[in-house]
Amino acid sequence: MGQSIEALEILAEHFGKMEGVGRKSAARMAYAVLDMTDEEAQAFADAILNAKAKIHRCPICQNLTDLDICPICSDQNRDQSTICVVAEPKTVNAFERVREYRGVYHVLGGLISPIAGITPDDLKLKELVQRVADGHVSEVIVATNPTIEGETTARYLAKLLKPFDVKVSRLAYGVPVGSDLELTDEVTLTRAIQGRQIVEE
Amino acid sequence: MGQSIEALEILAEHFGKMEGVGRKSAARMAYAVLDMTDEEAQAFADAILNAKAKIHRCPICQNLTDLDICPICSDQNRDQSTICVVAEPKTVNAFERVREYRGVYHVLGGLISPIAGITPDDLKLKELVQRVADGHVSEVIVATNPTIEGETTARYLAKLLKPFDVKVSRLAYGVPVGSDLELTDEVTLTRAIQGRQIVEE
Repeated sequence: MGQSIEALEILAEHFGKMEGVGRKSAARMAYAVLDMTDEEAQAFADAILNAKAKIHRCPICQNLTDLDICPICSDQNRDQSTICVVAEPKTVNAFERVREYRGVYHVLGGLISPIAGITPDDLKLKELVQRVADGHVSEVIVATNPTIEGETTARYLAKLLKPFDVKVSRLAYGVPVGSDLELTDEVTLTRAIQGRQIVEE
Repeated sequence: MGQSIEALEILAEHFGKMEGVGRKSAARMAYAVLDMTDEEAQAFADAILNAKAKIHRCPICQNLTDLDICPICSDQNRDQSTICVVAEPKTVNAFERVREYRGVYHVLGGLISPIAGITPDDLKLKELVQRVADGHVSEVIVATNPTIEGETTARYLAKLLKPFDVKVSRLAYGVPVGSDLELTDEVTLTRAIQGRQIVEE
């Protein structure tokens, strides 16, 4: 910016720190805040703090929730013996929209990626193994994106769960290779659940 | 979202209210806030409130500033008798980056647009007329976008300033420097021919 206003630049920096927000978008959003009324800006700031304060990870599935235990883990009508493993909370939402799946979830919080420096230790894998070790789990469906990172994580998981008496399956390749699960249409996602397959080591 | 968390949806709504932010981007940004540390989220919320509290319009040029009078209006090395009229604060920054212009500015806060319901009363036109009426202004350069709204506003302004002894000019239309004539639209090319200038030796 030619003529800099510190408070505006600091605000733009905060917007720009978010994934997928470029420098120009960040500046535009900072200006948008100035166009808000004082009440709107206060409500916006409150919403940020409120979301941070109220939302945490479910101690069972590691998905985001504002309850002690998330509504899916505490739902006794769901099949608690089938765990669908996903990378991110938003993928849970994608599956829930489809209404095909009646089991529960486990959110890893990412995928193994040597390039991005994400190792198995950075993911909620210990928590998943603990759930499987506790028994009552008959199948783990690995529903990671059909990318190199997703495949690596699926194979790692299969190896990790080998000692346990549990079926480890993978979403069927109805999902186009290289795509993003969040953007996959519902029919494709349904087919992928129905055609899930055993992960080979 | 399939499984809704109220605090997260409220936060996404706030992001989504900003111009140019779609539903998916808003949801992505709400998740990004949850990935922040508590300190980062607090700093983000503070930055919003701080920007709103500190930044206001310069009483002279209506540009955004955190000072009583903006640095350009209070700079006695600038030509205070030439006013460049722009729609938005960000256009001031575009001109300042160029360093060609040494006059001052007037920020209208928008352009006349019957479609968007923006009338002359919504713009800082009275304030501009007052500046011109106070004397000491020799030229007003209308630097609005070369669009229907920009043209309408420019013509409205020329009429408004007619009673005063002030030159009202407009940015030159033409072919952008470095562009390809073959790819230039016909309207721009027509304007470029109409506004052709003698080549100085």
